[in-house]
Amino acid sequence: MDAIGTTRWVIPEGYIPAGSMAGADRTLRSHEAACILNTGDSEAHVQLTLFFADRDPAGPYTATVGPRRTLHLRFNDLTDPEPVPFDTDYASVIESDVPVVVQHTRLDSRAAEIALMTTMAYPVG
Amino acid sequence: MDAIGTTRWVIPEGYIPAGSMAGADRTLRSHEAACILNTGDSEAHVQLTLFFADRDPAGPYTATVGPRRTLHLRFNDLTDPEPVPFDTDYASVIESDVPVVVQHTRLDSRAAEIALMTTMAYPVG
Amino acid sequence: MDAIGTTRWVIPEGYIPAGSMAGADRTLRSHEAACILNTGDSEAHVQLTLFFADRDPAGPYTATVGPRRTLHLRFNDLTDPEPVPFDTDYASVIESDVPVVVQHTRLDSRAAEIALMTTMAYPVG
Amino acid sequence: MDAIGTTRWVIPEGYIPAGSMAGADRTLRSHEAACILNTGDSEAHVQLTLFFADRDPAGPYTATVGPRRTLHLRFNDLTDPEPVPFDTDYASVIESDVPVVVQHTRLDSRAAEIALMTTMAYPVG
Repeated sequence: MDAIGTTRWVIPEGYIPAGSMAGADRTLRSHEAACILNTGDSEAHVQLTLFFADRDPAGPYTATVGPRRTLHLRFNDLTDPEPVPFDTDYASVIESDVPVVVQHTRLDSRAAEIALMTTMAYPVG
Repeated sequence: MDAIGTTRWVIPEGYIPAGSMAGADRTLRSHEAACILNTGDSEAHVQLTLFFADRDPAGPYTATVGPRRTLHLRFNDLTDPEPVPFDTDYASVIESDVPVVVQHTRLDSRAAEIALMTTMAYPVG
Repeated sequence: MDAIGTTRWVIPEGYIPAGSMAGADRTLRSHEAACILNTGDSEAHVQLTLFFADRDPAGPYTATVGPRRTLHLRFNDLTDPEPVPFDTDYASVIESDVPVVVQHTRLDSRAAEIALMTTMAYPVG
Repeated sequence: MDAIGTTRWVIPEGYIPAGSMAGADRTLRSHEAACILNTGDSEAHVQLTLFFADRDPAGPYTATVGPRRTLHLRFNDLTDPEPVPFDTDYASVIESDVPVVVQHTRLDSRAAEIALMTTMAYPVG
């Protein structure tokens, strides 16, 4: 399949709740993810920049998505150059050297049950 | 009505939880769906390709959407060439021989209540 | 403000659960809505056509959105030419004689709690 | 980074439930937000106009988003020229003097648990 999508995507919403439901394992812990699909034949080298309300941006964070692979990248897992703070408004820009498609999700288990939300990220020319 | 939409759509997010709430019937069982609308006068022959984190793509899966019909296709129901694994990150590309419009949904009933999310799929040229 | 948006929108997902949580009033009863914004100076005359899995389309349903007004139109409230069946997959096309913007929502209270989902409808040229 | 996005965005859905779960603090109180990202080097001066079902629009409301900053603006916090009424259908148009990207969210805690929904706002040329 050819390489589908574009090379820059934006997600203005970002917020990882510090809390999670009792006994939550990794799958049920509160988290946000950028789901990245690389349909093409070349590795995608991805850079994320995080924006905040009251401080300078953090990053770049880097990730690699193999050819014909998807990476559901959890913002919770980002550590280099610094972890993503909990309970803090942020936003993200995702840049790739080859076309990809990006979808944003949050699983929120602060309360006793889970809540979900998703949207396609905003594609930039 | 004329045929509305485009012939290729992308959904980077994919994850079918293995678990469901107690006593869930088909409607309340955890599932993901590609809701496909074919407004035109010709049958839409649809092909789905699934992408994963660490293996080659699966498919093509095939489906047919009649003229002036909608098909809310559950990924859970796909079996040929192979079922979609539970608790596994995936992504999908949906291709049709005539224009269609595609929306993605998940109903998640892993916990005691249901959670929902939806987004329009990403339209390609 | 000028008239923003476009004159045709598509929502492939449609499903109104028959059930609702105990004691639900109108606001908490399971429902789906097409939220329509008309920013312009002329009345918007809107037509909805509903598509199904296994029967011919229903409609047109009609609605009017005043100039500089929003209408959050519940599919549950449609009765003419026929009510929208519960527990049934459907899809919709919304057409207007002036530009509008359309967003889709479902509030689902089949279980003891509510679940929400939303997406911008798909704009057609 | 250059200024990403566009200068006008539309959100047809708007509804802030008056009720919230017992003991909800600010983070868990029912609210809607416009998450605005300004990636550029200039301050973004933002104007919001709110539309209703049966009265003239309210606004403009104003906000500022610093260069390389994100503002997750709660509609609940708007007070000038008038507060946003609870339990009332509304819609919004967001205008900026520099390009921004806007995403809409609702956290709804009317019931005992939280529900979430999100979508990218509709970008206008």
